[in-house]
Amino acid sequence: MASSTDRARPPLDPAAEELIDRFGRGQLRALARVITLVENETPGYRRLLARLYRKTGRARKIGITGATGAGKSTLVDELTKRLSSRGRSVGIVAVDPTSPFTGGALLGDRVRMQDVGLLKDVYIRSMATRGSLGGLARATREVSIVLDAFGKDVVLVESVGVGQVALDIAEIADTTVVVLVPESGDSVQAMKAGLMEIADIFVINKSDLIGADRLELELNNHLELQRQRDGWDYPVVKTQARSGEGIDELLEQIDRQEEYLARTGYLEKKRADLVRAEILQLLSETVTGKVRQRLEERGDLDTAVADILKGHRNPYQVVDQLLERVEGAGPNG
Amino acid sequence: MASSTDRARPPLDPAAEELIDRFGRGQLRALARVITLVENETPGYRRLLARLYRKTGRARKIGITGATGAGKSTLVDELTKRLSSRGRSVGIVAVDPTSPFTGGALLGDRVRMQDVGLLKDVYIRSMATRGSLGGLARATREVSIVLDAFGKDVVLVESVGVGQVALDIAEIADTTVVVLVPESGDSVQAMKAGLMEIADIFVINKSDLIGADRLELELNNHLELQRQRDGWDYPVVKTQARSGEGIDELLEQIDRQEEYLARTGYLEKKRADLVRAEILQLLSETVTGKVRQRLEERGDLDTAVADILKGHRNPYQVVDQLLERVEGAGPNG
Repeated sequence: MASSTDRARPPLDPAAEELIDRFGRGQLRALARVITLVENETPGYRRLLARLYRKTGRARKIGITGATGAGKSTLVDELTKRLSSRGRSVGIVAVDPTSPFTGGALLGDRVRMQDVGLLKDVYIRSMATRGSLGGLARATREVSIVLDAFGKDVVLVESVGVGQVALDIAEIADTTVVVLVPESGDSVQAMKAGLMEIADIFVINKSDLIGADRLELELNNHLELQRQRDGWDYPVVKTQARSGEGIDELLEQIDRQEEYLARTGYLEKKRADLVRAEILQLLSETVTGKVRQRLEERGDLDTAVADILKGHRNPYQVVDQLLERVEGAGPNG
Repeated sequence: MASSTDRARPPLDPAAEELIDRFGRGQLRALARVITLVENETPGYRRLLARLYRKTGRARKIGITGATGAGKSTLVDELTKRLSSRGRSVGIVAVDPTSPFTGGALLGDRVRMQDVGLLKDVYIRSMATRGSLGGLARATREVSIVLDAFGKDVVLVESVGVGQVALDIAEIADTTVVVLVPESGDSVQAMKAGLMEIADIFVINKSDLIGADRLELELNNHLELQRQRDGWDYPVVKTQARSGEGIDELLEQIDRQEEYLARTGYLEKKRADLVRAEILQLLSETVTGKVRQRLEERGDLDTAVADILKGHRNPYQVVDQLLERVEGAGPNG
């Protein structure tokens, strides 16, 4: 169908070409528009991303994850102010997979927009939680790509540390900062949630609260083996995000981690893993979409549903049989 | 490879045959074992499920969803006690996608096990949150199938109402009960979370708290159009789960909803939708697994990753090209 030259530069309609042009010239409204298209999976968004992809790979991606109420937003805002004052442009992606019920995010967002959101070269985007949670990780990854392509020096991905979503989002970041607070059992919860495995740097926020020293001790004990094994010291930084205390040290540790990643070749490996995950996800979406479409066109799916409800077949047989039929018909059948 | 008779009765190893036999004779340890195999996606679990599938379709499946702290567990326990005293066997599947951080679930579980868990013919299972959130919905659906096949009259699926997980789990249930509490903005949150669309029955739990009447009013206002449209009155039941108040009325409404579902043919439609979703999910998993395996065998994936990192191709081109190659090679290539 399409020659390989076509594919290297997929044709876009004139409106999309103009959007890319404005995006390339650094227009904020074009950035916002592209992000919306990506978030909504508007038809054609993949070709748009394919075009932007060549401009990526430059941004430093930092994930900030932790429980609701740990003070992630304040921490991210303080980091942003310091980065901005050093002349670095920042993109923030804020993700809260639990927000439909925890609420409040929208109000908080408005306050943020009028604080760090007004700084030069800072762009904030909150990810909506409608749609699937797998979709949320996809959207976060792709919005990070967009911010990278837009030329942001740093992309901060802020997310609530809930199960698989936290792990998926950690995959996106070069460096993952896990934020804990001195509350009973927070280190135990972090371990159970698998956050110990994804953290490169730990933050004990609200470190003026009782229990901060004990939490630090617990973390240090737990990290002993990991530190010996990896040649990285998994620093534990105490902060009080509200007063700005400890933020400079956190930035220092983030820079140290960057050097470590570059020196050990680990950054390359991380990025290769991300690209691999990216390909597999795209592949899965594409293949499933195609198979589904074929089955629906032929009415095979409806027949199968009816058979199962009558008890004549079960879904596991049906899937084997459907696949055989689709494959047997060849790629264009 | 396998004839269609083989497929109708897939061969299982002797241990699995024995497990199915003990399961069929109602042994609790066999039930627990089957659920664990399903939850862990232990190789061969699908063939096991395929065998159990023929015994399903009898259980009444009720979803109970709402925010953390709304009192869902207490409500489910009270419902269970009443159902049990009426001689109906009950299976409970408790799902909390946020639990790695909210914690506490394990302790709560232990208390429950020694309360309703000791009732005759009651079985409780909490779903682990490790693994993907999409996987959680799959596991919940499949564990419901297992409990149905085991002969439970009622399967109660209790879940935290978070985004897509809540919607996926609502799909499993014949009837969905949304539990709210009289707290500022709870109805607004429910609307934002899409819970208004999945609820068949509303519960205002902790109805002795201030704000219960206002919440009821808000709900009734919001439900006006829906009630006229659907010929179902979307009842709002006030309960105090701890004292047991309102639970009998809730059970009555659940029975009324069952009659409504049967009378209107809506139950059949719901179950057809579920089977359809089930097939598509199985299909997606199977196809993706196959394609991935082929690509890995040939090393195509590694080449693609390297190309992308060098900036020679982008993931969107790569996926198109990989698929062309896999399809071109034919079903057995």
